[in-house]
Amino acid sequence: MKKQKNNKIFQDKIIPLRDDIDRIDSQILSLLAQRHDQVLKVVELKKEHNIPVYHPAREEDLISRIRIQAEKAGLDPGFMEDLYRIILRQSRVKQTDQMEVSSILPGGKVLIVGGSGQMGSFFASLFKKSGYEVRILGKSDWYRAENLCKDIDLALVSVPIERTCDIIEKLQYSLPLNAVLADITSIKQEPVKKMMECHKGPVTGLHPLFGPDTGSLDKQIIVTTPGRDAKACQWLIDQLSIWGAVIVRSSAAEHDNIMEVVQALRHFATFCFGQFLYNRDAKLERTLEFSSPIYRLELGMVGRLFAQNATLYSEIIFATKERRDLLKEYIASLKSHLEMLEKNDKQLFVEKFNKVSEWFGPFGEQAMRESTFLINKLIERF
Amino acid sequence: MKKQKNNKIFQDKIIPLRDDIDRIDSQILSLLAQRHDQVLKVVELKKEHNIPVYHPAREEDLISRIRIQAEKAGLDPGFMEDLYRIILRQSRVKQTDQMEVSSILPGGKVLIVGGSGQMGSFFASLFKKSGYEVRILGKSDWYRAENLCKDIDLALVSVPIERTCDIIEKLQYSLPLNAVLADITSIKQEPVKKMMECHKGPVTGLHPLFGPDTGSLDKQIIVTTPGRDAKACQWLIDQLSIWGAVIVRSSAAEHDNIMEVVQALRHFATFCFGQFLYNRDAKLERTLEFSSPIYRLELGMVGRLFAQNATLYSEIIFATKERRDLLKEYIASLKSHLEMLEKNDKQLFVEKFNKVSEWFGPFGEQAMRESTFLINKLIERF
Repeated sequence: MKKQKNNKIFQDKIIPLRDDIDRIDSQILSLLAQRHDQVLKVVELKKEHNIPVYHPAREEDLISRIRIQAEKAGLDPGFMEDLYRIILRQSRVKQTDQMEVSSILPGGKVLIVGGSGQMGSFFASLFKKSGYEVRILGKSDWYRAENLCKDIDLALVSVPIERTCDIIEKLQYSLPLNAVLADITSIKQEPVKKMMECHKGPVTGLHPLFGPDTGSLDKQIIVTTPGRDAKACQWLIDQLSIWGAVIVRSSAAEHDNIMEVVQALRHFATFCFGQFLYNRDAKLERTLEFSSPIYRLELGMVGRLFAQNATLYSEIIFATKERRDLLKEYIASLKSHLEMLEKNDKQLFVEKFNKVSEWFGPFGEQAMRESTFLINKLIERF
Repeated sequence: MKKQKNNKIFQDKIIPLRDDIDRIDSQILSLLAQRHDQVLKVVELKKEHNIPVYHPAREEDLISRIRIQAEKAGLDPGFMEDLYRIILRQSRVKQTDQMEVSSILPGGKVLIVGGSGQMGSFFASLFKKSGYEVRILGKSDWYRAENLCKDIDLALVSVPIERTCDIIEKLQYSLPLNAVLADITSIKQEPVKKMMECHKGPVTGLHPLFGPDTGSLDKQIIVTTPGRDAKACQWLIDQLSIWGAVIVRSSAAEHDNIMEVVQALRHFATFCFGQFLYNRDAKLERTLEFSSPIYRLELGMVGRLFAQNATLYSEIIFATKERRDLLKEYIASLKSHLEMLEKNDKQLFVEKFNKVSEWFGPFGEQAMRESTFLINKLIERF
């Protein structure tokens, strides 16, 4: 009886407070809609005057100002920053969407070789949106290659790694001399060499470091490995930048060397881990109930690999002899820890650990900060 | 000249738009401050009436409502949901902060054995905030153990794994019969067995699945492995729940089995990967310039390990013979892939991959979704 009465009093008091919060939420929403409209007007204006979308300095100014205002209003500045990072990203994506129509080479003709694959389609749709004339050369189109290549400004080769060189060879007979020839294979030495041999005009290698499921190019990295006549290739690089990509320049050799680690080794190590869990038939679901957010995230990285295309990963991992040798070296390196385990030599582990730790240097702290930030996001969301 | 004029026109038009946006931002901020005040009033009311902090149903209602309103106002519902997840989390943290003072056993006496360590201090401060009398038994306090143990309701053992059993033995002579004896070691079979032997009163094993750098217990997991007289231990479990922890019940054997994989194997695999990068002296900084957000995140998981305490990880990895055997098994399992690499047998890789993929089942898709969400957060923020 007393409990019921207590509950009634609580309800009477809380309802007006909740109504108040709901009213405040509606006002916030309506202000965000107004903000959105103003942002669209800014975009229109920028388009009219050919001004770039981003204004990083203004963004950082705004964040600083918001933090100071938050402090004054008794709100947590970090919380307000989180909120505004989302708002600014949303408005940036909107702006990029709008700007995607901007074209560096208006009316340019682009041939996507392998344009029916996922990455090919992705680039085809970007070029189309920006008003390029896009042609697709698929498996069954070689009989009309000459026609498809006529007057093109760019041939972008987007086929599986192992077929890249053959396709480039086939293409050479139809390619106009001043067309840019580029590929998006995830290895660069062989394809760029082949392109240089087969085409005497402008050549550049590209490696987009993302999959076709990426919604936009916003802040995504594309590595360029120049081949010939960088000036004639510049419009393509500019176009990728305008779409939001971050361009990293590198030699083909450096690129391949780094990718051995970034792609082949990392994916292979993840593959081995998943394979071992499978062999042991680890109780995945129950394990997840026991999982801290950080482990959930780590296991998620493994699950993520296996949710993707096996053939794609076999190509990445087995791409070159250098890669396969590196992976064999990796397997051998693990054996060197066997003795430490057998002898239960914790001291040796600590010594090894500390050396690696020192070598990682400031990246360790940074990784700690970034991953803690993400773990909090994970806790928020799931 | 023309460009300058163009620029002048642009500036004249954009300034009022930006002023408008700034004005809207100020209004949003002031509404958020009002919202914050109302939330504090709700917390006060809940405290007065002893009502739990969370109201998950209300949160999900609110999110659904916000999404519908967003749609109507022409805003992206996903974007508004992201925003409100942050706002709700912030208000939940505030509420938990306020509620942390709530005590299940008002005036209870808690002894933290090893309370000067990081985890010990963390729990000590939680108990203190909730009005418990907290006593610390450090290395140099054993001469007055009898006094420190007098009338305690709980002795919480928070010492390094390898010392846990010895400490429990030492403790038995001073412990009152009806005090709860609990430990927070990351293995559970041995410590729980030892506690059962040394104490005839209530016993429970605990394993908090997080480090001392976690700001709050909000949504963090604590595994409990019951020992004796679960009823008498219940107040402790309830207290942990009130602080926001998610309690997972398990047998000590199941716990240790799962932790072999979740902790020992995962950390060891990460250690091996870092060690290999160090041995090759991989160019870390340049590599990061080439890194897609997903690789940055993966490398971040490695860097994160090495930013932490070597001894702590040596204890986790080398804790039991079972763990060391598992790791040897893991090393052996990698060797089984050598032939596949030597023969360049992509087909075998694809077959293996697909089997694991099938075994992962729906977790793969879920991991894909969660990690894509996080990658977007990473892009937003860094």
